[in-house]
Amino acid sequence: MQSFDAIATATVAKAPNLEPAFEHAGQIKEAAARLTAHKNRRKKRPNILVFLMDDVGWGDFGCYGGGVAVGAPTPNFDKIARNGLQLTSCYSEPSCSPSRATLLTGRVPNRHGLHRPPMYGEAGGLQGEVTMPQLLSAAGYVTQAVGKWHVGENAASQPQNVGFDDFYGFLSVSDMYSEWRDPHYFPEIVYSEARTKWVENMPFNRCFVHAKRGQEATNVEEVTIPVLSLLDEKWCQYSTDFIKGMAKKDEPWLLYHCTRGAHFDNYPHEKFLGQSPARHPYKDTILEMDAIIGRLVETLRETGQLEDTLIFISSDNGPHMETWPDSAFTPFRCAKGSTWEGGVRVPGLMMWQGTIEPGQQSDGIFDFNDVMPTALGLCGEPGRLPTDRYIDGVDQTSFLLAPGGHSNRKFHYYWLTTNFSALRCGEYKMVLTATSDDDAGHAGPGGFTGTLERYPYARLYNLWLDPKETHNYMTRKLTYVDVFQSGIRSHLGTFKRFPPKKVLGQPAS
Amino acid sequence: MQSFDAIATATVAKAPNLEPAFEHAGQIKEAAARLTAHKNRRKKRPNILVFLMDDVGWGDFGCYGGGVAVGAPTPNFDKIARNGLQLTSCYSEPSCSPSRATLLTGRVPNRHGLHRPPMYGEAGGLQGEVTMPQLLSAAGYVTQAVGKWHVGENAASQPQNVGFDDFYGFLSVSDMYSEWRDPHYFPEIVYSEARTKWVENMPFNRCFVHAKRGQEATNVEEVTIPVLSLLDEKWCQYSTDFIKGMAKKDEPWLLYHCTRGAHFDNYPHEKFLGQSPARHPYKDTILEMDAIIGRLVETLRETGQLEDTLIFISSDNGPHMETWPDSAFTPFRCAKGSTWEGGVRVPGLMMWQGTIEPGQQSDGIFDFNDVMPTALGLCGEPGRLPTDRYIDGVDQTSFLLAPGGHSNRKFHYYWLTTNFSALRCGEYKMVLTATSDDDAGHAGPGGFTGTLERYPYARLYNLWLDPKETHNYMTRKLTYVDVFQSGIRSHLGTFKRFPPKKVLGQPAS
Repeated sequence: MQSFDAIATATVAKAPNLEPAFEHAGQIKEAAARLTAHKNRRKKRPNILVFLMDDVGWGDFGCYGGGVAVGAPTPNFDKIARNGLQLTSCYSEPSCSPSRATLLTGRVPNRHGLHRPPMYGEAGGLQGEVTMPQLLSAAGYVTQAVGKWHVGENAASQPQNVGFDDFYGFLSVSDMYSEWRDPHYFPEIVYSEARTKWVENMPFNRCFVHAKRGQEATNVEEVTIPVLSLLDEKWCQYSTDFIKGMAKKDEPWLLYHCTRGAHFDNYPHEKFLGQSPARHPYKDTILEMDAIIGRLVETLRETGQLEDTLIFISSDNGPHMETWPDSAFTPFRCAKGSTWEGGVRVPGLMMWQGTIEPGQQSDGIFDFNDVMPTALGLCGEPGRLPTDRYIDGVDQTSFLLAPGGHSNRKFHYYWLTTNFSALRCGEYKMVLTATSDDDAGHAGPGGFTGTLERYPYARLYNLWLDPKETHNYMTRKLTYVDVFQSGIRSHLGTFKRFPPKKVLGQPAS
Repeated sequence: MQSFDAIATATVAKAPNLEPAFEHAGQIKEAAARLTAHKNRRKKRPNILVFLMDDVGWGDFGCYGGGVAVGAPTPNFDKIARNGLQLTSCYSEPSCSPSRATLLTGRVPNRHGLHRPPMYGEAGGLQGEVTMPQLLSAAGYVTQAVGKWHVGENAASQPQNVGFDDFYGFLSVSDMYSEWRDPHYFPEIVYSEARTKWVENMPFNRCFVHAKRGQEATNVEEVTIPVLSLLDEKWCQYSTDFIKGMAKKDEPWLLYHCTRGAHFDNYPHEKFLGQSPARHPYKDTILEMDAIIGRLVETLRETGQLEDTLIFISSDNGPHMETWPDSAFTPFRCAKGSTWEGGVRVPGLMMWQGTIEPGQQSDGIFDFNDVMPTALGLCGEPGRLPTDRYIDGVDQTSFLLAPGGHSNRKFHYYWLTTNFSALRCGEYKMVLTATSDDDAGHAGPGGFTGTLERYPYARLYNLWLDPKETHNYMTRKLTYVDVFQSGIRSHLGTFKRFPPKKVLGQPAS
């Protein structure tokens, strides 16, 4: 864990299209030695399991101060934290689709163009992007996606057409299948013929699907509410089957498992209904998530693949506070939809038994856009990164694998839809533009409800002394400003060389 | 961990002056078996080490979601959490002296009378109270107090006159020794002859002292700022010497070790200066606290007493936000001085190697006033509790010792100086009166700065779904109200039978 002035030093730009990064010689050597040791011991490249939850908060797990304290113990997540590296500054984007597209492309939303989630079959998604599964496929990996997709329903954006060998899941987001079906929560829609017809005419698929590389997706089953409550169970089963199947094969694999839970509205599997101490559907769903990751890890263990698999566990954004009480917990300011820490700081657990040292915590910055370059680093093929577009992610292999490793990232850049909002370096965060909501939610609103505020004078927060971002420290830290100014200049400068992209329009208001 | 409706059941009142408590038969039996097993194995009653810090926050330790995430790793505290029982709902009072007096007497402030800290030698403290060290002394324990006292400077309230065999520490609070000495922070006092003379004339002792039971305290050394920075080191040394000395004796012991840190203004020992990642005096002091608890535990281990000692680690209240950045972190609403969770929810770690099962977390309510009855329970002498006054604490022996034990407490009562503020039952908290501050501190104020607000309609918060107390849930939970009403009635009713006491007046405004 390095502080601001250790980080405010020169990074290395390996190519004009790559985000400059630190090169910590010692930890690079140590990580390489660990990768080699694994290869010699196990004779294969590592598998990668990305376990991505929906709207789960930084504060939900016991290892982040949640668990029993928020009415839902998470023994499996906590055990994974103890057996691996717990990241306390893992960053998503402010909402679902931007985060997922960033994870899959190594690029910030202003490049891949998904600034907000596509809804009700809106065209637009990952088409035209170079994705992690494409690159890992080319490197000889079997690539499997399971669960929530939500980075484009149009054929060109579907998982089987952007690098996955197989996909089993739904193309949109949980509430899209329920918010016009549930008469309890949505009577004005359910009992309105006009609205029901409108939904019926929308070009989105009401079913969850199965698809094989390059082929058309086939419907598995319509996602009614009873089916919705079974999805995480079905998807877990599909993933455990995949893991078991791969145990007999030689190829390494990528499993991108995205849960339905715990996105509003939660209809947990009946096994978990009322089973959390809090007995709220959100909390019951957290128990379900915990049980599912436990089963996936157990399947890896049973099939002898635990030592061969790097597991990354996270969530796609902070708590959605407009849907309280069906929502997560963050100790930080504001919520999903904002670039305050509550919107974008997410759980981040990394486990690779035998290769990542257990019992570590780090506040080093890890960004969703680091996942793709890191995956290539882990499989020994960093050269596969595209050269025709800007890649914001940096290879964090040495951060993750060297015990006590430092992040290779100098800045985290915060984007609020098309607005450049803030940047973090070490423990300091400079905020230029943000939503007006405070973290209290006293007036009700969460991150999606605030108005856009541009500050006439940039604000500076020390996230260690002031994790809730309540004390503007700028006037006291003028000697730091140049570092942020040059960071902003060079980041925004990349968009001159590599123009931004926008896939979706503003929703009609 | 039990939820509201498991808790909203009948408690047992063993005597008219005792707080009614649950009697969970199974866990009482299990705890008794563990106490007997310890006694048979070790042939002695357990020692009790209370390690009480100053103004340290719920969120400061890694095991509560702090640590590296807030710029100060706490490996020793985290290890103790893993090796014992981590309490996520441990409650102090809203400020220092009320908390300490409550811990030492088993009574809420409206009974022991210390509603706020006595300052600059104000008369008034523990005199007339029956204290835990008195009762443990009578039960054959050696009783040692080290460090901060601050529950009365008058002779009758001093530790050697309220049950301790020996005391080595200061009688007031850290800032009392520095806020008229430091020209950097307090130039208007230091450079003012009138104010300096005023301080000189105040009847408080500028030295830290040594005192033996019943004797007059003797000055050890004047607490100048250089001495202040050495105090935690000196006190740690004194306590390790005590622990070593007791290893050769037959009697069990109580060590009440109260640190100077991390109360504003922090002047950490030079060994720790700039050593935390955050390099702020508060965070450096947290490192020092972590090192000190590590040394105490190590001394217990080296002297063969670790298996004989229950260790309770806590802090006397939430973060003091008026002194930011020299302040702690809580994920909860508001701060020290308030009855929002941020003011009174404190770290609570319990470790007793070989007797308390390691690796447990519980959100069961543990109150500072439970410490005295629990200490008597642990030493097998619950009958020593006074009969002439009301005791708010309940014996939590079975909660702590039985694996997966439930709290024996039905309600936590929140007092804001002389005002009854709120009560908690399970995950629900009903608030009648509170300070106006929100948790954001956007306008600067912390818990001491707010105004007193009485709500025309009581508010109800679900602390599991809404840990930040931002959503009043009352209208949705009217079926719960009777439980709170009867709790308030019976609690306030005890003051009719046992009239309240007030030791200090309001400070002159």
